[in-house]
Amino acid sequence: MKKKNHKRLSKKAGLPPGTPVHIGRENNSDINIELLVYSEESAELIKLSNISECKPFLAENKICWIHIDGVHNTTILEDVGEIFNIHPLVLEDIANTQHRPKYEEVGKNMFFTLKHFEYEQNDMVLDIEQLSIVVGANYILTFREKPGDLYAKIRERLLNGLSKARSRKTDYLFYLLVDTIVDSYYEAIEKLEDKIEDMEEEVIDDKKGFDLHSLQLARRELILFLKAVFPLRESLGKIIRRESTQIDDATIVFFSDVYDHTIHIIETIETQRDILSGLLDIFLSANSNKMNSVMKVLTIIATIFIPITFLAGVYGMNFKFFPELGWEYGYAIFWLICLISVGTMIYYFKRQKWF
Amino acid sequence: MKKKNHKRLSKKAGLPPGTPVHIGRENNSDINIELLVYSEESAELIKLSNISECKPFLAENKICWIHIDGVHNTTILEDVGEIFNIHPLVLEDIANTQHRPKYEEVGKNMFFTLKHFEYEQNDMVLDIEQLSIVVGANYILTFREKPGDLYAKIRERLLNGLSKARSRKTDYLFYLLVDTIVDSYYEAIEKLEDKIEDMEEEVIDDKKGFDLHSLQLARRELILFLKAVFPLRESLGKIIRRESTQIDDATIVFFSDVYDHTIHIIETIETQRDILSGLLDIFLSANSNKMNSVMKVLTIIATIFIPITFLAGVYGMNFKFFPELGWEYGYAIFWLICLISVGTMIYYFKRQKWF
Amino acid sequence: MKKKNHKRLSKKAGLPPGTPVHIGRENNSDINIELLVYSEESAELIKLSNISECKPFLAENKICWIHIDGVHNTTILEDVGEIFNIHPLVLEDIANTQHRPKYEEVGKNMFFTLKHFEYEQNDMVLDIEQLSIVVGANYILTFREKPGDLYAKIRERLLNGLSKARSRKTDYLFYLLVDTIVDSYYEAIEKLEDKIEDMEEEVIDDKKGFDLHSLQLARRELILFLKAVFPLRESLGKIIRRESTQIDDATIVFFSDVYDHTIHIIETIETQRDILSGLLDIFLSANSNKMNSVMKVLTIIATIFIPITFLAGVYGMNFKFFPELGWEYGYAIFWLICLISVGTMIYYFKRQKWF
Amino acid sequence: MKKKNHKRLSKKAGLPPGTPVHIGRENNSDINIELLVYSEESAELIKLSNISECKPFLAENKICWIHIDGVHNTTILEDVGEIFNIHPLVLEDIANTQHRPKYEEVGKNMFFTLKHFEYEQNDMVLDIEQLSIVVGANYILTFREKPGDLYAKIRERLLNGLSKARSRKTDYLFYLLVDTIVDSYYEAIEKLEDKIEDMEEEVIDDKKGFDLHSLQLARRELILFLKAVFPLRESLGKIIRRESTQIDDATIVFFSDVYDHTIHIIETIETQRDILSGLLDIFLSANSNKMNSVMKVLTIIATIFIPITFLAGVYGMNFKFFPELGWEYGYAIFWLICLISVGTMIYYFKRQKWF
Amino acid sequence: MKKKNHKRLSKKAGLPPGTPVHIGRENNSDINIELLVYSEESAELIKLSNISECKPFLAENKICWIHIDGVHNTTILEDVGEIFNIHPLVLEDIANTQHRPKYEEVGKNMFFTLKHFEYEQNDMVLDIEQLSIVVGANYILTFREKPGDLYAKIRERLLNGLSKARSRKTDYLFYLLVDTIVDSYYEAIEKLEDKIEDMEEEVIDDKKGFDLHSLQLARRELILFLKAVFPLRESLGKIIRRESTQIDDATIVFFSDVYDHTIHIIETIETQRDILSGLLDIFLSANSNKMNSVMKVLTIIATIFIPITFLAGVYGMNFKFFPELGWEYGYAIFWLICLISVGTMIYYFKRQKWF
Repeated sequence: MKKKNHKRLSKKAGLPPGTPVHIGRENNSDINIELLVYSEESAELIKLSNISECKPFLAENKICWIHIDGVHNTTILEDVGEIFNIHPLVLEDIANTQHRPKYEEVGKNMFFTLKHFEYEQNDMVLDIEQLSIVVGANYILTFREKPGDLYAKIRERLLNGLSKARSRKTDYLFYLLVDTIVDSYYEAIEKLEDKIEDMEEEVIDDKKGFDLHSLQLARRELILFLKAVFPLRESLGKIIRRESTQIDDATIVFFSDVYDHTIHIIETIETQRDILSGLLDIFLSANSNKMNSVMKVLTIIATIFIPITFLAGVYGMNFKFFPELGWEYGYAIFWLICLISVGTMIYYFKRQKWF
Repeated sequence: MKKKNHKRLSKKAGLPPGTPVHIGRENNSDINIELLVYSEESAELIKLSNISECKPFLAENKICWIHIDGVHNTTILEDVGEIFNIHPLVLEDIANTQHRPKYEEVGKNMFFTLKHFEYEQNDMVLDIEQLSIVVGANYILTFREKPGDLYAKIRERLLNGLSKARSRKTDYLFYLLVDTIVDSYYEAIEKLEDKIEDMEEEVIDDKKGFDLHSLQLARRELILFLKAVFPLRESLGKIIRRESTQIDDATIVFFSDVYDHTIHIIETIETQRDILSGLLDIFLSANSNKMNSVMKVLTIIATIFIPITFLAGVYGMNFKFFPELGWEYGYAIFWLICLISVGTMIYYFKRQKWF
Repeated sequence: MKKKNHKRLSKKAGLPPGTPVHIGRENNSDINIELLVYSEESAELIKLSNISECKPFLAENKICWIHIDGVHNTTILEDVGEIFNIHPLVLEDIANTQHRPKYEEVGKNMFFTLKHFEYEQNDMVLDIEQLSIVVGANYILTFREKPGDLYAKIRERLLNGLSKARSRKTDYLFYLLVDTIVDSYYEAIEKLEDKIEDMEEEVIDDKKGFDLHSLQLARRELILFLKAVFPLRESLGKIIRRESTQIDDATIVFFSDVYDHTIHIIETIETQRDILSGLLDIFLSANSNKMNSVMKVLTIIATIFIPITFLAGVYGMNFKFFPELGWEYGYAIFWLICLISVGTMIYYFKRQKWF
Repeated sequence: MKKKNHKRLSKKAGLPPGTPVHIGRENNSDINIELLVYSEESAELIKLSNISECKPFLAENKICWIHIDGVHNTTILEDVGEIFNIHPLVLEDIANTQHRPKYEEVGKNMFFTLKHFEYEQNDMVLDIEQLSIVVGANYILTFREKPGDLYAKIRERLLNGLSKARSRKTDYLFYLLVDTIVDSYYEAIEKLEDKIEDMEEEVIDDKKGFDLHSLQLARRELILFLKAVFPLRESLGKIIRRESTQIDDATIVFFSDVYDHTIHIIETIETQRDILSGLLDIFLSANSNKMNSVMKVLTIIATIFIPITFLAGVYGMNFKFFPELGWEYGYAIFWLICLISVGTMIYYFKRQKWF
Repeated sequence: MKKKNHKRLSKKAGLPPGTPVHIGRENNSDINIELLVYSEESAELIKLSNISECKPFLAENKICWIHIDGVHNTTILEDVGEIFNIHPLVLEDIANTQHRPKYEEVGKNMFFTLKHFEYEQNDMVLDIEQLSIVVGANYILTFREKPGDLYAKIRERLLNGLSKARSRKTDYLFYLLVDTIVDSYYEAIEKLEDKIEDMEEEVIDDKKGFDLHSLQLARRELILFLKAVFPLRESLGKIIRRESTQIDDATIVFFSDVYDHTIHIIETIETQRDILSGLLDIFLSANSNKMNSVMKVLTIIATIFIPITFLAGVYGMNFKFFPELGWEYGYAIFWLICLISVGTMIYYFKRQKWF
């Protein structure tokens, strides 16, 4: 089966709106659900086998962070939707891993979705994963496509009581989650920058191994980054313009910092695009230069020898009446003419700056 | 008759404004009119032979959805205009299948027009059709150019009572219709993405079959998509900015979701355009590489043989006084000179990295 | 005299502002003035030999439409300015046929200027003409550069009482005039689209007749269209944003329709520009392909024959001590070597996919 | 000394702000100061040897227009600043002839700076000069870099009493000055248009004289124009948006007219840029076409003669056992083979449409 | 170790927000701290060995300007943060030398960060350094990456009492600092302009030394400039829009002047980019022209000699029955045919305008 048959958005055509359909990689792994309940005083991590087990904790005066690995099980999503009273369209967006990053306030919840980038297989393949965050007054739900330790450091600091989030509302944890992802972009982009720098060196050193496909690949990856970061910036922009009432002013400052990072990332990507297109120019021009020098060699050799080869042909003719052939210095004169002809050519080529 | 003589907007020049003139493919088929009357309790599908037959149903406390296949019969359009009190300019827009997608509130009606894309004939030909929707308080009129089952699923769910639309106003059915079309865009665009991916493989594998016309065709189709989706996004933007008073806030959320889809579609198209232009670069550069290698072969062969061919010519001359010809090792020396000359050339080419 | 010495805007440099100077084609023809007086009850067309003859009609409770053919006679313009109390800068703009389309409200008058396009001489030459419209409470003045029947249909319907304009104010006639011109754009642009389609076929069929000048010409014409339609859209935008108090709301709907048409026209032009630039790519790439195949033929022939020609040269040498020449199968061996050499080459070229 | 060491803005680095430093061409000529005092009744032109001589006239109930040729003498600028109470930063801007055109209201004065373009030396060299205007309630100061008769016509009409400015405030004279400069742009741009048209003809006629440097030069000049006109439009935009209280509404209409001219100029420049880039395409494509036809000639000649030359070489060999040489019709058969070979080639080339 | 392993932003990933981490060149030099205390009456420069030594001066009724060389010691930064009550995110930004220029008001402080450009090593290497400024009511903190005399002139004038800053608030010193940096941009950009001008001359004179790498380098540097100046303009824009209450109106005028300079710098950079891309066109086109002329020489020589070489080959054949060889004028006729053939060729090439 070809790669291009996966991840099709057209699967949704014809379904009633608000039906969560998993769009993305096929995935049959189990779904892990982890609950982290914390307050200023304490924090506890609990593995849930079923989403409804979190209900008792919600009643307490604590904050619940529920993390769900895998969005391919739409039954679980529907359960979550019921417990936390989430709008069906939001559930649909969580299940659709092809969704455009966005921020939305639906009812009393904030819904945020963004992408995570990771290079795999020896930095050759860029893996893109969708993360979704639902923020309520005393709970945060996070979803990702596959298991992993993306939020490990945040969780650890929360449990150890080192994080400021312990004494703050869900908006600060929300910020921490977003900030972690945005910081991870730097890593992916710096890997890509290294690749492009390597390519540049290859082109300049005129190594044989270089081909345009890697350049096209790098360009595609830059486009993917841009497609993820542009709407992210937009979403953060909505937050820092205080369109939401659920984020404290003290937290806005932090979001504003993340916003600056996204702008910085966008500018870095744009710069790399400019550099890539410059690289293409250099590559094409180097090619054309090479062609030029090949042509010159051919032309110089051909132009020098063609006339004197003709001359040799002339004196190889078998005419009976052929005065020159009998001359005593005929052969010497032939070489003299050759030398003069070649000398003239070389002088001409020098004047043309051909070598 | 050539294709380019159809679908001319210039046919309208000089006519008084508000005259419905059919602009589009020639079409002589009959026009089907279907009426779907529904309320929360019941739903019924009735085939009408004449548009005026719908009048009795309009008086009832139900919602009437009248679907008309074919806009080439302007008499019927005028009848519809009279019964539902539609502004002449709207009728003109419905009959003009070249119209730009738009949303307008005229009097108490909302008028919405958009495009439908379908690949026909083995996915080779992109067919574009214009759909128009007129939304009134208790009726919805839909027009399309040719018969088909575009809205089959909606109709079915309405009749079976599965659709939420049964208990809502016309604005929700309006949303369902628009959503169905926008979802169908994914299908068409994914087919185009597949085509472009195939082209990319052809270029990279350097197959002989590839030609630039298919690339130009794909570019044209992307432009057509953009021309349809850009104004559609604009129209949906007007709706979600609540410029209209006829759409409930609860329905706005759904339109906002469709709006997000159009943005996603636009970004997908833009990405494909970038990929196409990268493809052209690769193709041209591969061509230039091929030329380079052809030139090198020519130059190497010519450069190696031209000088020694000259030498053979020299010793084929018939001068009477020609000392070398009488030497005992003359012929052997000739081959020695040839070998040295060829060796020097090959060394030079190696140093130039020509092979 | 060269074409580029006409139509110079620099003629105005140094003149006091508000001096009407005719800028445009030289024109010595007479100026026709036509007056169409109409009210709901009656309509009458009168040829005027002098602009002041219209004064008695202005006093009546009717609408006067005065059409003037030719703006090269600045004396007449000044007379008009005096009678209708028109701002000198407006008169200057009317006389300057190079002016950018614009809409302005000056005092109690509206001033509108736009371009008319027409293909002449067998559709080869695009002729651009400037039209100006001055709208007052009970009169409309229209100016064009040369005589013609541009408004013939409007005039006819007005005289026959078929036009709704008879029962409306000047704003509706104003709309009719603008609408007529904008509709006529479709005709000109469709002719250009046909030309571009023809070019595309020529390029694809690789006909010899195609040259880039026609492509450059088409591009120039598209630019001219854009330069005329962009400011026109802007002007209509001002009208539909109700910046003017002289246009009734009922008429705004109609202007809004014209506005949509200009957007549609702009998008069509942009599409054609994209297609043209794609065409250039195809053309250049086809050229480069052709070059490639020419080079291949040369290289194959040269590469095959150069080595065996050298060999023939060798056995044409006249060395006295030349063992091979005396061999019984020498000649046969020569041909054998030739065949092997040629076979190897052909195998190599096949492997390189050169043919 | 190289040209690039002049006009350096870096000269200012490290100086305290508000220090007028002359940045521009070296200039040692004397500075002329002219005073034109006028009121509705009278007007008088006075040459001043010293700027302070104007003081008595300022007290009168008249308008003083002081024109200063040359901004390289910063002492005079400082005197002017003191007399008219001008902000030091404005003086700095006047002395800096590299300044970006701008409009500013500083205290009770308006400050306007713009560029003047002139082709010199047989229309080959574009000279750019900076003009500054300071407008007060009853005085106008104008500065230019070098002497000349730029405002000659305005001055003349003022002195003769023909100008409306006599009966108006300084804002109208201000308008007259700006209008004169903007009108003079048409002249410079039309000269450039002529040059570009000439280039186009050269490219199309494929004259040998054409080189890309003139195209690059024209592009550079277009950029210079744009860089001057864009900020000028911006400045005029500020004026017509009535941000200033010192300009009467009646004068705003006139400024609005100048504003339209700048838009027209910008569009003209953009058009010329499009045409230039089209020209480059044509030029490159013509080059590539020429290369193509050169290659074809080479290939045809080589391909026709290489095989038969080989054959002639074969029959020039000296093998002892060489049956064909003894045949009676050997020579005739040789020619027959040559004819067949050449005929086949020519047929092949015809089919490839090479000639 | 490769250059690309430095300056990594990814070092920050996973750290809690507000942790100052030095991102930038490795730097082990000591950190200098200088305190300049001034009031209208007096000014004094004090070298501090420890940041806490500044505390006594802060209490006085004077302004303290503390300059710190080196941001790689995060302990010192944290001390500064504590003494002056600076937000942790600001400290993080100061330590991150890769930060995007920005302006922010955090609490009662203003925070400004921008870049400084300097050409080093014989103008070959562009060094970029980050400068940060924190402005409080009675103190200003400045940070730079490495020691240097960037602010030497300001400091000197402050100490000598020549600067107006002595009698003003911190906002004016703030302006002076920013103005000094922006003025220094002109120097760096003018050096780059000189380089580009040199390149242009090399391309036009067709010197051998020119290669595209220097062009790519210049393009990269222009991008770096743009990336620094764009956000700087944005920041200054915030200031002059009076978003801050800590800057006096009298100082706004000065900032407005700096703002104009940044716009001027941006336009200069854009112009240079246009010129660079024009340069690439010229370079490529010159290359293609050269190729053309090389091809022509080859074609002319080959085309002239190939046919007559064939003829010489023919008369070198050894057929027994070969009538021409015995003719008395055979040899002369051979030369006659050669002359005619060559003459025809030359005539043809002339007509094709090949030389």
